[in-house]
Amino acid sequence: MKFSPQKAVYEVTASEVLAPGIEIGIENGKISCLGTSLPRDDRTKIIDAKGARVTPGGVDSHVHFAQDNSPTGDDFTSGSRSAIAGGTTTVIAFASQLKTETSVIPCITEYHTRAKDKSYCDYSFHLILTNPTPAIMQTEMPLLIKQGITSVKLYMTYEPLKLGDSQLLAVLMAARALGFTTMVHAENSDIISLITDRLEAAGHSSPYFHAISRPQIAENEATYRIISLAELTDTPILIVHMSSEIAMRHVRKAQTRMLPIHAETCPQYLFLLSERLKGTEKDAFEGAKCVCSPPLRHDPKDLKAMWRGIANGTFTIFSSDHAPSTYDHAGGKKLGLKDGIMRYKNIPNGVPGVETRLPLLFSHAGREKDSKLSLQRFVQLTSSDPAKLYGLEGTKGNIAPGYDADLVIWYPETEVGEGVVIGQKMLHHGVDYTPYEGMKVKNWPRYTLLRGKVVWDRDGEGIVGDVTAGKFLKRGKGKIVIGKTGGEANGMLEGERDFWY
Amino acid sequence: MKFSPQKAVYEVTASEVLAPGIEIGIENGKISCLGTSLPRDDRTKIIDAKGARVTPGGVDSHVHFAQDNSPTGDDFTSGSRSAIAGGTTTVIAFASQLKTETSVIPCITEYHTRAKDKSYCDYSFHLILTNPTPAIMQTEMPLLIKQGITSVKLYMTYEPLKLGDSQLLAVLMAARALGFTTMVHAENSDIISLITDRLEAAGHSSPYFHAISRPQIAENEATYRIISLAELTDTPILIVHMSSEIAMRHVRKAQTRMLPIHAETCPQYLFLLSERLKGTEKDAFEGAKCVCSPPLRHDPKDLKAMWRGIANGTFTIFSSDHAPSTYDHAGGKKLGLKDGIMRYKNIPNGVPGVETRLPLLFSHAGREKDSKLSLQRFVQLTSSDPAKLYGLEGTKGNIAPGYDADLVIWYPETEVGEGVVIGQKMLHHGVDYTPYEGMKVKNWPRYTLLRGKVVWDRDGEGIVGDVTAGKFLKRGKGKIVIGKTGGEANGMLEGERDFWY
Amino acid sequence: MKFSPQKAVYEVTASEVLAPGIEIGIENGKISCLGTSLPRDDRTKIIDAKGARVTPGGVDSHVHFAQDNSPTGDDFTSGSRSAIAGGTTTVIAFASQLKTETSVIPCITEYHTRAKDKSYCDYSFHLILTNPTPAIMQTEMPLLIKQGITSVKLYMTYEPLKLGDSQLLAVLMAARALGFTTMVHAENSDIISLITDRLEAAGHSSPYFHAISRPQIAENEATYRIISLAELTDTPILIVHMSSEIAMRHVRKAQTRMLPIHAETCPQYLFLLSERLKGTEKDAFEGAKCVCSPPLRHDPKDLKAMWRGIANGTFTIFSSDHAPSTYDHAGGKKLGLKDGIMRYKNIPNGVPGVETRLPLLFSHAGREKDSKLSLQRFVQLTSSDPAKLYGLEGTKGNIAPGYDADLVIWYPETEVGEGVVIGQKMLHHGVDYTPYEGMKVKNWPRYTLLRGKVVWDRDGEGIVGDVTAGKFLKRGKGKIVIGKTGGEANGMLEGERDFWY
Amino acid sequence: MKFSPQKAVYEVTASEVLAPGIEIGIENGKISCLGTSLPRDDRTKIIDAKGARVTPGGVDSHVHFAQDNSPTGDDFTSGSRSAIAGGTTTVIAFASQLKTETSVIPCITEYHTRAKDKSYCDYSFHLILTNPTPAIMQTEMPLLIKQGITSVKLYMTYEPLKLGDSQLLAVLMAARALGFTTMVHAENSDIISLITDRLEAAGHSSPYFHAISRPQIAENEATYRIISLAELTDTPILIVHMSSEIAMRHVRKAQTRMLPIHAETCPQYLFLLSERLKGTEKDAFEGAKCVCSPPLRHDPKDLKAMWRGIANGTFTIFSSDHAPSTYDHAGGKKLGLKDGIMRYKNIPNGVPGVETRLPLLFSHAGREKDSKLSLQRFVQLTSSDPAKLYGLEGTKGNIAPGYDADLVIWYPETEVGEGVVIGQKMLHHGVDYTPYEGMKVKNWPRYTLLRGKVVWDRDGEGIVGDVTAGKFLKRGKGKIVIGKTGGEANGMLEGERDFWY
Repeated sequence: MKFSPQKAVYEVTASEVLAPGIEIGIENGKISCLGTSLPRDDRTKIIDAKGARVTPGGVDSHVHFAQDNSPTGDDFTSGSRSAIAGGTTTVIAFASQLKTETSVIPCITEYHTRAKDKSYCDYSFHLILTNPTPAIMQTEMPLLIKQGITSVKLYMTYEPLKLGDSQLLAVLMAARALGFTTMVHAENSDIISLITDRLEAAGHSSPYFHAISRPQIAENEATYRIISLAELTDTPILIVHMSSEIAMRHVRKAQTRMLPIHAETCPQYLFLLSERLKGTEKDAFEGAKCVCSPPLRHDPKDLKAMWRGIANGTFTIFSSDHAPSTYDHAGGKKLGLKDGIMRYKNIPNGVPGVETRLPLLFSHAGREKDSKLSLQRFVQLTSSDPAKLYGLEGTKGNIAPGYDADLVIWYPETEVGEGVVIGQKMLHHGVDYTPYEGMKVKNWPRYTLLRGKVVWDRDGEGIVGDVTAGKFLKRGKGKIVIGKTGGEANGMLEGERDFWY
Repeated sequence: MKFSPQKAVYEVTASEVLAPGIEIGIENGKISCLGTSLPRDDRTKIIDAKGARVTPGGVDSHVHFAQDNSPTGDDFTSGSRSAIAGGTTTVIAFASQLKTETSVIPCITEYHTRAKDKSYCDYSFHLILTNPTPAIMQTEMPLLIKQGITSVKLYMTYEPLKLGDSQLLAVLMAARALGFTTMVHAENSDIISLITDRLEAAGHSSPYFHAISRPQIAENEATYRIISLAELTDTPILIVHMSSEIAMRHVRKAQTRMLPIHAETCPQYLFLLSERLKGTEKDAFEGAKCVCSPPLRHDPKDLKAMWRGIANGTFTIFSSDHAPSTYDHAGGKKLGLKDGIMRYKNIPNGVPGVETRLPLLFSHAGREKDSKLSLQRFVQLTSSDPAKLYGLEGTKGNIAPGYDADLVIWYPETEVGEGVVIGQKMLHHGVDYTPYEGMKVKNWPRYTLLRGKVVWDRDGEGIVGDVTAGKFLKRGKGKIVIGKTGGEANGMLEGERDFWY
Repeated sequence: MKFSPQKAVYEVTASEVLAPGIEIGIENGKISCLGTSLPRDDRTKIIDAKGARVTPGGVDSHVHFAQDNSPTGDDFTSGSRSAIAGGTTTVIAFASQLKTETSVIPCITEYHTRAKDKSYCDYSFHLILTNPTPAIMQTEMPLLIKQGITSVKLYMTYEPLKLGDSQLLAVLMAARALGFTTMVHAENSDIISLITDRLEAAGHSSPYFHAISRPQIAENEATYRIISLAELTDTPILIVHMSSEIAMRHVRKAQTRMLPIHAETCPQYLFLLSERLKGTEKDAFEGAKCVCSPPLRHDPKDLKAMWRGIANGTFTIFSSDHAPSTYDHAGGKKLGLKDGIMRYKNIPNGVPGVETRLPLLFSHAGREKDSKLSLQRFVQLTSSDPAKLYGLEGTKGNIAPGYDADLVIWYPETEVGEGVVIGQKMLHHGVDYTPYEGMKVKNWPRYTLLRGKVVWDRDGEGIVGDVTAGKFLKRGKGKIVIGKTGGEANGMLEGERDFWY
Repeated sequence: MKFSPQKAVYEVTASEVLAPGIEIGIENGKISCLGTSLPRDDRTKIIDAKGARVTPGGVDSHVHFAQDNSPTGDDFTSGSRSAIAGGTTTVIAFASQLKTETSVIPCITEYHTRAKDKSYCDYSFHLILTNPTPAIMQTEMPLLIKQGITSVKLYMTYEPLKLGDSQLLAVLMAARALGFTTMVHAENSDIISLITDRLEAAGHSSPYFHAISRPQIAENEATYRIISLAELTDTPILIVHMSSEIAMRHVRKAQTRMLPIHAETCPQYLFLLSERLKGTEKDAFEGAKCVCSPPLRHDPKDLKAMWRGIANGTFTIFSSDHAPSTYDHAGGKKLGLKDGIMRYKNIPNGVPGVETRLPLLFSHAGREKDSKLSLQRFVQLTSSDPAKLYGLEGTKGNIAPGYDADLVIWYPETEVGEGVVIGQKMLHHGVDYTPYEGMKVKNWPRYTLLRGKVVWDRDGEGIVGDVTAGKFLKRGKGKIVIGKTGGEANGMLEGERDFWY
């Protein structure tokens, strides 16, 4: 056995994942071995990670880059650059069908074009289905699965995107048959419309009313509904960007019953409250920066509830839902401000966060009394579990022989000092603000490695990766992380489904 | 003070309601006084009810008589005749809007015609709204309320009847503003359609598959949804004919939180199981007799759960949902049998039950160890609470001075003997079967009195009332029986609704 | 029929209970009839209650008068005087066994002596069992039941009073066999001892630490435990003076399952918070006035939770737990202050409240938006349901023919004005303070009638009753108000109990 | 780097844990590296595990060997022999204090003597505390912790063992201060005594009545109580051998709230029902073989519930609770049979199971539709999580560099064939029966390795280990596997505990 020059050996302390002192051997971009004292020769490159924690490269399975019907402050280049600077080595962005399109193949082709040779990190796409015709479900989805596009996203809200129950059921039945993974944005559309119309009529249109217009009941109802449809069809789902405690409890109860219901939350629902939507004295419209859906909630106990779901295992995934919209530039948040009149309805939804996601959560991970989650949960939420759920197990999300050598090396605690204050100036996205301006995090990725190569060197030149380095990831079928299929449904006879499946 | 000849004095033993030995004085069709020893003169008529229990006349707030879009085995004459023979002195039937109708006034007029001078008992109508246009809600509903039509029914299923969430919300907001009572049939339509289509494709079409096609999940989901919409709009509702334990638990939890969510169940969900849909050896199609929606459930524990809701107060109303369809005659259940092929989809939904409702429940009421509910709950469920909820308080549903003298006098226990075996031959409806054929009940109304007059005399001539005696009841606004409005909604800021109500 | 001079006729408006305009006929101290227009002659005495609400006389089933092992600020004379001035016409006080006593008969005799000819209102006793020997349970309890003492109280805390699980079980098994009613003070004794010892060691002994020493967990645990023991033995219980939301949820869940678990709360848990224990700037020890057990809780949401239980039916009884201890006099609260050192352990537990109980709750009853309960619930909680549970049905707790004419006539709304400000000066108890000093209530009893005689005339001479008028009430066996016996227990085979019952 | 002769390299397929094809390098009894293609030389010993799954050696943290107050069918030699034949390489047995002993040091010394040089596998002890005097808790426990005895077990039932609440609290407070792990047997003692006495009086004494005498309520109550005490004291616990669904739900709810409440179940509660206690036609007493506590439950849904807890993560540990009692020999189960009279009270409690534990659970692990848990959960439950909870992390329970090379190599699926039928003849314990006689399992350990040495070679000579090979494991402090300390307790003010901790 020979160690090629590409091989690096790390001394690491990631005690939650591996005992201190374990070395990671890398060969040809993959982890070749883990050991207490690996052989090395003069071609061996060594990164000394003594005292540091090493975690698998982040997998951010929910980002919007260069998307037609979404804020467009980031293309793949700026978005993926921001990703690696924050320790994320894999992103899954969205390719979005238009309702008028009766084939989704051209759409996938188009998004390939947008990403190819333009990404600093590895990437894949979820397909947003806005018109799941029988032809698409039966003919095109099998094709896409072969091409490694093994997940779809469905909306229960937004006029141009939303599906009715019969469409949701059709997709779930197809998911059951074909084995792709289904993500769902769960908010009741008609509730939101009712309130929005009435708020508008009453002249309540500043950004703050965005939060009023989408109450937790809208999320709770849609969450319960989609869980019911998934139980009926015995199909795993992931409910994206959850923000409501009661909705979360529905998920937890389903999980207790071993239904394969997965859930995701995002940094904005752990750190930000609706008061942020009220803007500042200087700029009354500035609340627009924090307009996202579901909206920021009102009460600190709402944040606390999400933290509990993060810690107790209800959430499978912690993603950024990076939805970049510039504030000051044309086509951005200011669409909601015309002739001095604020109209929250016209503000592009979303906040940027692909770069800050890992540091924000890592700051609360560990064994200290005031930590909110274990390091193991940190790794599951940000890397391993999204990799499993979306068909990247064996390649991404783990520090184990055979896996891609995607690694984040954090600063040793002794070097961290006072931590890092987040500021727009230090970030690498294409957006002109961050909602976390001024917040302090305890640590930041010292190095990011993508398939064995350092792509981010914070104490060196910063971004040192190559904009063409990112590969499209042909994903396999996702694996259920929690629960199982084949269980019984409440109130059905055993075998009742056999009649009609 | 004089006692007119119309006055009767009863010695009664309805210990749950009044102490034994209390006399009920009646004058001009109303209860004039209750007392331990009322004055009497030679014009006083006395009914000796010694040893008997006397309960208020039944209020059956859910019957289908002479309805266009419903089984038509009973018009008002046969339906109300059946009612009084079973102790029911008030029925509320349905006047049903067609989706194409942009005014509901003619419809109400038409149903008045169908009932006027043709009813043995007092009656009113709920309006079924299938197309709640703004004009109807804003202009016609206030009119109807003035005319004493103070309740509407909404469907979440059945293609020609169902409303989407935005329509449900529109009606609830109107109910909030105008104060009418809203009943909802809660089953998820798209779930039922999916299964129905697939069962059909698989050749599963006998009556039994009716139960398979409407699983409890469909009821659970719709129940949770309508509770959410009611919470959002802070409006009381009644969910009709519940059959699922989980759905019932949603109601119970809402009631614990003091939301004004009322619920109803019916005899079929306490006594019958889906095996009844399998027909008999002699007649494979006979299961059609028990096709109703929600369907009969599979498991004895489902019945047990409904009994628990009856006893613990979750259900406010126990109605018959009398939906009469003949079995053998044209236009009846046999619509589901054509050229020897059974198609459950074509079977008119519903079972008859207006006459058997009270005796079936009364058999399980009392203080004995094996009783399932108290007599007090019996009276609440069958008479007092429907009267309150639908705006008849002060007139119907109570044995108290000032109320209509609508009374049921049951046989004294000493005279009951073995009880009564239910059989089609003894019933007075227009339908050619009863689903309770052969079941034994412990007691049966000895007398029924409508506004002070005996209309049913079981040991005498049977029906002794007058077919023109029944009056239209101009109802007031309904009263909330459980919970209250004005409470806080989960996950909303206090006062948040003020912005958009 | 003749109306004796003792008869009074009232025009009343107690619309929740009876329609407006109903007259109440009284003869020989009992209600003889209710009617819309009762006959009267020149001997008829009439009280005009036009515009007023009339409710049944209050039944306060939890008061401590002249009790050896309890605060002794009130004997039967001062306590019952206070009762009638607040609308309460029946009190059930305690006769308390000492642990050393092997017979309870002398104890009962002694308490009879303390009350006889010394009470303004009717009264009875619960027996506190601190040493339930087999002899007492098998021989003496049947005797007491014959004498009309049909209820016992058990303590799970307080060293001189508490029973262990095996003793609790023994009493429950006896209750099952003999049919008496069992009240339980549910707090975990060892939890309280642990904290108390440690607080003491740490020098935390001011009245406020009384609340710290008895956390909600102590109540939650004991509540769950006693419900478990009651379920096992299939015996109804009442849990007294509940103060914790989680404990209350255990009760609610048991009730949902139809277990006969009753619960009680008191004014202090609806209106007062633990901050009251901190005393005033002027008098640091004044917090002692609010030392009671369970203690006042910390958070407004604790009060809110109790109100929810009041409104949604979880609580069967609203009693005062009147435990009178003077503040300034010897043997009172000041026992906790010695040589300038405060020791909460030595403060006699309890607050006075027999007089303020009805007005405090009545202020929140009605149909107004901001009301917290219906008038019907008010009557159930304060009068009808305690009467039923403790064997006074048919005599007390209802405005119906045959019942004792115990009535409260409230001021008509038009005469209420600004309401009444509670102050120690206006009260009739023997204690030198009220914890509700300065609180405003909306109404106050205008008249109180005990068995047809006016005993309290607020606009006249105040107390007009006779100190010897109160009779001992020989009670029958209590009736289960919620749930039922004979149901199945969780996780037992049907009939499993037959082997060992 | 050199590979010593002691080094072995395995090709394995344990895809849930490591990708297929990963080799495990072993040096000096420890895992030195994992890799895709490890270097080897001629001294390298290779075990070909192609196609097989390799899992970490089992950690059975709940066995009774050579214990004074427990069935004594197995000493350390026979017990540990049985362990390795079933894939278990670490056992934690019990050293039991007698109530009369005021020091626990001699007891620990004695149990060391019983195990030293007499065990085929590594071992440690939990200390059973039956009399936790302040001296023991303050002086001796710190000593024991230094010696590597870092866990205690407490009983809430059994007269000679049980602790009252104040003692439980004292131990929990000590656990909080010193950091040892606390196991609790949770059944309400007084409930069991009551029923037992009454059953006995009624002449119900055959083994079946053992199950009747310990109803689920006894477990539910004690479980809720110990969780309450743990919440109060903010101390992690493990509840041993759970068998009741409701008790399990209490655990799950606590975990949802992030309380550090761990739970354990055992094979008997997944596979056996109380009907087994009824004996056989041939031998009416044979039910005695299945007498254990908590008892086998009645209903298949009870088993199903436990399986759900196994799968959904509620249980942290799956142990055998190996409590060996011979059936036919003196001092065994037949103590319950005297002069032909069966008395279940006298039957030694417990079933043997240390050898069958892993194969029974492994049979239901995997990704097949009918599997009940994932392989990952299998490893967590049987090895990793007990290692973590009891202070063996870094040494036992993981296939990772630095860990002891304790491994189980299962048969490749292609070689499994029909599986293995469990029979007493094939087992290695000292007991004369197995309750699983005749049950078929899918697989069995092909090899067991203890610290790099093969000790069980099923296709070879069977037991090939050395009876002196097992070492005492000096354990560190356990780690919380689920939940965390330092959270808030229900109904306490934040910081309230600071006053008295």
